Amino acid sequence: MERKPVTEDSILTKILASCRPTLRSSNRSYVALGMGDDAALFRPKTRHETILTCDWFVEGTHFLRDKHPPDSVGWKCLARAVSDVAAMGGTPRCFLLSLALPASLTDRWLDEFLKGLRRASRKLQCVLAGGDTTRRDEILINVTVVGEVKAGRSVRRSGARVGDILYVSGRLGEAELGFRMLKQNNKTASATNPLIRKHLYPEPRIALGQWLARNRLASSVMDLSDGLSSDLPRLCAASAAGARIEKTKLPTVRLASTPQVRSVHPTSLALHGGDDYELLFTVPPRRVKMLPRYFEGLRLTAIGEITRKRGVRVLTESGHEQLLLARGWDPFR
Amino acid sequence: MERKPVTEDSILTKILASCRPTLRSSNRSYVALGMGDDAALFRPKTRHETILTCDWFVEGTHFLRDKHPPDSVGWKCLARAVSDVAAMGGTPRCFLLSLALPASLTDRWLDEFLKGLRRASRKLQCVLAGGDTTRRDEILINVTVVGEVKAGRSVRRSGARVGDILYVSGRLGEAELGFRMLKQNNKTASATNPLIRKHLYPEPRIALGQWLARNRLASSVMDLSDGLSSDLPRLCAASAAGARIEKTKLPTVRLASTPQVRSVHPTSLALHGGDDYELLFTVPPRRVKMLPRYFEGLRLTAIGEITRKRGVRVLTESGHEQLLLARGWDPFR
Repeated sequence: MERKPVTEDSILTKILASCRPTLRSSNRSYVALGMGDDAALFRPKTRHETILTCDWFVEGTHFLRDKHPPDSVGWKCLARAVSDVAAMGGTPRCFLLSLALPASLTDRWLDEFLKGLRRASRKLQCVLAGGDTTRRDEILINVTVVGEVKAGRSVRRSGARVGDILYVSGRLGEAELGFRMLKQNNKTASATNPLIRKHLYPEPRIALGQWLARNRLASSVMDLSDGLSSDLPRLCAASAAGARIEKTKLPTVRLASTPQVRSVHPTSLALHGGDDYELLFTVPPRRVKMLPRYFEGLRLTAIGEITRKRGVRVLTESGHEQLLLARGWDPFR
Repeated sequence: MERKPVTEDSILTKILASCRPTLRSSNRSYVALGMGDDAALFRPKTRHETILTCDWFVEGTHFLRDKHPPDSVGWKCLARAVSDVAAMGGTPRCFLLSLALPASLTDRWLDEFLKGLRRASRKLQCVLAGGDTTRRDEILINVTVVGEVKAGRSVRRSGARVGDILYVSGRLGEAELGFRMLKQNNKTASATNPLIRKHLYPEPRIALGQWLARNRLASSVMDLSDGLSSDLPRLCAASAAGARIEKTKLPTVRLASTPQVRSVHPTSLALHGGDDYELLFTVPPRRVKMLPRYFEGLRLTAIGEITRKRGVRVLTESGHEQLLLARGWDPFR
């Protein structure tokens, strides 16, 4: 079979053609000059700060070529970076895509990847502004997302105070369980299962983050990407405090909705499972009554509080406190 | 030998500690919130556009672990991304570092890498604002640089007009020759040779790019990263034109300064050698007289002109025109 020679320019052209026409003009106007020049030009809004975040998404570490459909790789690489913008209370504007892949994947795999990326770009209203491509035996992706937030309105990790109530959105451990099911299942079974979908096509909590920031409800926010037991200590460290969470309050996966998966421990999944991209946030006690139980259909659950005593402790059903060790996702472990 | 366990957080802490205190406070003020939160916050200047660019720099493709000293990897990964900001006529402000490396390199290699990165950060006045790390058997680097330019003052690739004179800064092919010498030499010999230094520690032409933009001298600018024969067609394509360059005018390497390197063809090096990070720019004929022969000690050489006829042609010594084929660096070739 004859093949047209693949060049860096031909791949850039393909990416550009795929992702250019997806955005409402209102959001496209932030990008004055996109892919194809030396750099992209972004027009910042007055009295806003620019949010900058980048995320690795590489084969073997963050996804598996034979398990993750290419369109989910396209969706997820953007969604997880946008999740960091959501955690600051910001609005995503544009992104840069750095893509390395084998020449053999520049046809069908790349097309499917771009389909997922375009869908995420449209859904999250985040336009492709530029990028860089290179050849590599393995698929390597790095996404930089640019967002905006009104000056002084961003919510940091470091604002939690002793006595603040700890909240999470959604249910924890769902994406981890979805991933375990994906590894066991065949591909067609996967597309419809809600847990597998949460793992493949996570939805960053943009509206919740913005609402918390706009109404000054949260003293600190971060997104849960590596798992509660890894991420909560980071929030505590940034805020120079500790935390106590109650095991019985954790919003765990509902086992009724899951078929038989070996060794499912909902609490353990909720504590250590990664990739949920839910928000973890703290609310000062006087503001707790302003918080609904559901925000736009998304459950908000108080799971504990910020303590003076450092470290993260779990209060068990029997009333004992156990030190929580970070057993979430760490690539160096 | 006992080792402290390596975690993602411990590496982030090391990077942060190394790169935090390097910048003049004037430039640090652009970054409201750096590494360690979900995202960085950048404060844009009013009436400025934000320049965004990202660049892969990966082992085996862009550098060799056994040939490139780690401090040059640190310097170069930032310098080459900043070069794209220079090509827009902008000022670099801050950068995001995405780093993947084996656990075995998180000690001495990482220290040396960070030394080079810190030196570049200080020299180029570009502050570390954030990043992401992960573990990988090979060293993978992706750098996003954020710069600024007065609104409407950036210089694009697409502005070249028929009759404009083509210029390059510096000498072309020096970095490629330096790379060939590096591959032959032992490490200690390398550090002092100016050609090898140009390959290892390139200096983006920030001041020249700003000067061309500020004085509206150039109708188009791009930086030469892959080599003239690959980059010039990109400028021509963006400007919907062609170009003719004169072989005898090319500012080639001075062979007197090079020891015996097998098969050195200065013209071929100038046409196809990559990694020079010089600027390629076009000047309307009526402005040519405003251009000095040297800008801050850097030679500026007219090498040809923009033509209506598409394609890039080379006028040889004998007066013949040859079509120039892209033989510069392309990872997919």
